[in-house]
Amino acid sequence: MTDPRHNLRDIYPPTGPEISAKSWLTEAPMRMLMNNLHPDVAENPHELVVYGGIGRAARTWEDFDRIVESLKKLEADETLVVQSGKPVAIVKTHADAPRVLIANSNLVPHWATWDHFNELDRKGLAMYGQMTAGSWIYIGTQGIVQGTYETFAEAGRQHYGGDLTGRWILTAGLGGMGGAQPLAAIFAGASCLAVECDPDRIAFRLRTRYLDERAETLDEALAMIDRWNRAGEAKSVGLLGNAADIFPEIHARMKAGGLRPDIVTDQTSAHDPLNGYLPSGWTLAEARAKRETDPKAVEHAARASMKVHVQAMVDFWDDGVPTLDYGNNIRQVALEEGLENAFAFPGFVPAYIRPLFCRGIGPFRWCALSGDPEDIYKTDQAMKELFPDNTHLHQWLDMARDRIAFQGLPARICWIGLGERHRAGLKFNEMVASGELNAPIVIGRDHLDSGSVASPNRETEAMKDGSDAVSDWPLLNALVNTASGATWVSLHHGGGVGMGFSQHAGMVIVADGTPDAARRLERVLWNDPASGVWRHADAGYEDAIQCARDHGLNLPGILG
Amino acid sequence: MTDPRHNLRDIYPPTGPEISAKSWLTEAPMRMLMNNLHPDVAENPHELVVYGGIGRAARTWEDFDRIVESLKKLEADETLVVQSGKPVAIVKTHADAPRVLIANSNLVPHWATWDHFNELDRKGLAMYGQMTAGSWIYIGTQGIVQGTYETFAEAGRQHYGGDLTGRWILTAGLGGMGGAQPLAAIFAGASCLAVECDPDRIAFRLRTRYLDERAETLDEALAMIDRWNRAGEAKSVGLLGNAADIFPEIHARMKAGGLRPDIVTDQTSAHDPLNGYLPSGWTLAEARAKRETDPKAVEHAARASMKVHVQAMVDFWDDGVPTLDYGNNIRQVALEEGLENAFAFPGFVPAYIRPLFCRGIGPFRWCALSGDPEDIYKTDQAMKELFPDNTHLHQWLDMARDRIAFQGLPARICWIGLGERHRAGLKFNEMVASGELNAPIVIGRDHLDSGSVASPNRETEAMKDGSDAVSDWPLLNALVNTASGATWVSLHHGGGVGMGFSQHAGMVIVADGTPDAARRLERVLWNDPASGVWRHADAGYEDAIQCARDHGLNLPGILG
Ligand SMILES: NC(=O)c1ccc[n+]([C@@H]2O[C@H](COP(=O)([O-])OP(=O)(O)OC[C@H]3O[C@@H](n4cnc5c(N)ncnc54)[C@H](O)[C@@H]3O)[C@@H](O)[C@H]2O)c1
Ligand SMILES: NC(=O)c1ccc[n+]([C@@H]2O[C@H](COP(=O)([O-])OP(=O)(O)OC[C@H]3O[C@@H](n4cnc5c(N)ncnc54)[C@H](O)[C@@H]3O)[C@@H](O)[C@H]2O)c1
Repeated sequence: MTDPRHNLRDIYPPTGPEISAKSWLTEAPMRMLMNNLHPDVAENPHELVVYGGIGRAARTWEDFDRIVESLKKLEADETLVVQSGKPVAIVKTHADAPRVLIANSNLVPHWATWDHFNELDRKGLAMYGQMTAGSWIYIGTQGIVQGTYETFAEAGRQHYGGDLTGRWILTAGLGGMGGAQPLAAIFAGASCLAVECDPDRIAFRLRTRYLDERAETLDEALAMIDRWNRAGEAKSVGLLGNAADIFPEIHARMKAGGLRPDIVTDQTSAHDPLNGYLPSGWTLAEARAKRETDPKAVEHAARASMKVHVQAMVDFWDDGVPTLDYGNNIRQVALEEGLENAFAFPGFVPAYIRPLFCRGIGPFRWCALSGDPEDIYKTDQAMKELFPDNTHLHQWLDMARDRIAFQGLPARICWIGLGERHRAGLKFNEMVASGELNAPIVIGRDHLDSGSVASPNRETEAMKDGSDAVSDWPLLNALVNTASGATWVSLHHGGGVGMGFSQHAGMVIVADGTPDAARRLERVLWNDPASGVWRHADAGYEDAIQCARDHGLNLPGILG
Repeated sequence: MTDPRHNLRDIYPPTGPEISAKSWLTEAPMRMLMNNLHPDVAENPHELVVYGGIGRAARTWEDFDRIVESLKKLEADETLVVQSGKPVAIVKTHADAPRVLIANSNLVPHWATWDHFNELDRKGLAMYGQMTAGSWIYIGTQGIVQGTYETFAEAGRQHYGGDLTGRWILTAGLGGMGGAQPLAAIFAGASCLAVECDPDRIAFRLRTRYLDERAETLDEALAMIDRWNRAGEAKSVGLLGNAADIFPEIHARMKAGGLRPDIVTDQTSAHDPLNGYLPSGWTLAEARAKRETDPKAVEHAARASMKVHVQAMVDFWDDGVPTLDYGNNIRQVALEEGLENAFAFPGFVPAYIRPLFCRGIGPFRWCALSGDPEDIYKTDQAMKELFPDNTHLHQWLDMARDRIAFQGLPARICWIGLGERHRAGLKFNEMVASGELNAPIVIGRDHLDSGSVASPNRETEAMKDGSDAVSDWPLLNALVNTASGATWVSLHHGGGVGMGFSQHAGMVIVADGTPDAARRLERVLWNDPASGVWRHADAGYEDAIQCARDHGLNLPGILG
């Protein structure tokens, strides 16, 4: 029997100004679906996996083909309905309605577990959509660099007057996502010491220029940091070692007058004690062998080490060093191991991202359907002109152009908020209309955004009013975007934190240069970030209430 | 402190052709919200409770006032966003978009429990929307009569060639919903013997004409049934007694040559063993007292009796009598008490309702905004003319007019499906346009419908492909209705079966007599039932696949 999820085809999106669908509004989702499976974009495209474990773009290859075929035939007043990666129906709607509506991996709560999902998945009845995998707006690793950069930059604003020059970040883990940390730190203006137990990971990050140096000993690493700090240079070093040993050691030296980190965090895979975290005192080979022969022993030792690791983080925190959990659940493990004040330091969202969410600021991104990098460079320039005073944005755009290679269709990400996004959209639309760009621009965002996700262990951790688990908000976000005329809208479950732990919504809109698109862009790119502002204003955040007032939002039950 | 949920005002919707909102599309949700709280409609209107325990229409009285105020001011290109009964935002959309978007009681799955809901509710952060309470399209008890009638009628079609003349239904429970059974049986053409342990309940049903006779002994009751059956008359009798005693007794007599019931079911409140089910051998007074002093003893005895009760139902089933569970969870209790084959007989949805759902048939309803009963009588007549061959429908309309009093704004419910609903909508719209009706008509449905609910213990029990818990479907239903231009759309969680156990979507559309409304009615009232047809076709039901083919639905991933 052939596996409906395996295929040796390589998928590349068409590029250039000629289309094979009936309009750009249907050509766009087709190209973006294909772009998600581009060999340079997807982690495992032959299995339809885009990123994040098993986050897929379509349920099977047959479904992929049927989606493409459907999009090619779709009329201007029709909508394609996709259920967990399968194109179930084409329905008659109207020109201002979305061209594609998507729901992925949603389960009735009582059954919303990995076990039940896996059972359905084996039967061919499910697909894990992650956030942007099943909603066709993944653009590669640029997103994670940017998110980490924004976190570090916001920490810099909150604690160091917005200037991280001569300062350094202590972290651990240089894996799939954690590997973005050194580059993100440098983008934010800080040096970075990253502890990593696997020499291959360090070598890989050096090779791809995400990391500048490597060090064998702590003395060596700290000497580098000290040198860079004094020179006001932002550079990064990977230190081979175990975070559970090195973090306490750095803290002890600090207490004895040694270097003091300016920010402390961690991105080891603590969420998976069996496979993701090396216990202190173990070699990689030992851990690998014991995972087979005595998995419980590995888990036990890893959890004990995490307690030591978190204890050191709490110590830094207690000594006034800004310290944050980066969503790997390490505090929870330490708490379970008996470290009562494991949650002394906050998660990254409540600490640094939420103030941005309060103003509707989040991971806005766009992609050039032409395939031409020049189109993105032109939009980079346009963004600078549109927001001349946003030096933070200018810096990011320059650094991103300089250090981050495009993957698949050229794309850009940057964090902007309510009152800005619609202006960017309208500007891009004009540039398409005038012929300055070679083809339309697709505009979207991550589901990890201000108004589009309910995820009590991550994006909505510790909401001021306790509404962490209320998921009316992402559902309303999807309904509002549908009513406003986004080009495709999606509702997913489980992205980022797994089955049962999140509900979230996606939105993508095409700037095809027409006046109709302009009307829709103005509405959608206003209402979408506004939904984040109301969600946070309703929870009682002053920044959000102020932002709502400043922008004249009409919020009867909130502003009165 | 005053309770924000309590108020002594009586709410009546405005009636007649004058409006205080800016259009009928906003006047309609305002009148329907008020109608949900009409003293003749709502169970506890002063607490904002419409029906179903704590199913509310608005979160607080202040929210109610703000919703009304917002609807009065809402422009033709604006949309009001309601989050768990609170009007959070007014956003700019367009004329073809819904005027109201609603999400009620949705919780991230891992936290989707009554405990967490109640905690939020106490903080003023939540509202239980039930199905039509929080989505402003409840119309009183006509709905439950109709649903029960359709179940009995479908059972008649499946087992008795569509003719229940001279046949009888054995059931128990004459409570809030169960009290509709005798009337529904008669509507379906069958006599009914309902066992009820509380004489007051029997008296109440006699007084309101939902029940014809009462009997003190089984001999007496069976004699009546026998007489009516022979005469080909459909009448009902309430027998004072305990179902756990009477059901086995009737079965034993049947085996000894006595009367054989033609359908067996039950609507005692078995879902709540402490308060809802009287143990065999106990008096009502004993049970009442023991609930305080020894609740565990009551529960224990009730559960033991249920096992006996279900054993009798299994015996009827084994002897070839069509037997069904009516969604009160009695099989589950019996199973837990050790009755291994408790699930021998099916639930009512897989047995009788699903074949209707496969054709998009479900609880279509409409309401006269004029407040004039004549408007409904005219639409009754129009429905008969539109569907001249549907004798089942004609019978229902006549019986409903004859035996069911209007509550609040005059309304009608009837079960029709794909290919019929949009015709009814267009017809009503013409009648409004021509002035034949005194004001616009609001058209909606229950969330318990073919494509709008995922509820593994009720509406999606035992789906052919095992997709019971997949809730992509109701979410897509809401997105499609939003994209098609329904007047208001809602997404709820927990209706009917409680927190964690269901997700479902509502849809209401206004026929205001304009050509714009006609376009929307045609799309929405086609796509909405069609979504039920695809959902069931995707699950492999032949009836649904055939219905999809007959109606030319475009289902790429299902029909190929
Ligand atoms: N909340 C968010 O948005 C967010 C973003 C990025 C990452 N994360 C979380 O961060 C974690 C890392 O993600 P990833 O994709 O990089 O994982 P990964 O498994 O690819 O990388 C983890 C790295 O940590 C190293 N490591 C393990 N134990 C160590 C120890 N004791 N000392 C030093 N190094 C050690 C491993 O060798 C590996 O290189 C995950 O838990 C992930 O969920 C969350
Ligand atoms: N699935 C559906 O759509 C659906 C529809 C209607 C009702 N139901 C279920 O049916 C049940 C009844 O609903 P209700 O609103 O009528 O409840 P209710 O509590 O108002 O009525 C239950 C009635 O059963 C009687 N009763 C209790 N124990 C008895 C016994 N041993 N013998 C005889 N009579 C007994 C009580 O006196 C009471 O009158 C509930 O469990 C409800 O969830 C489900």
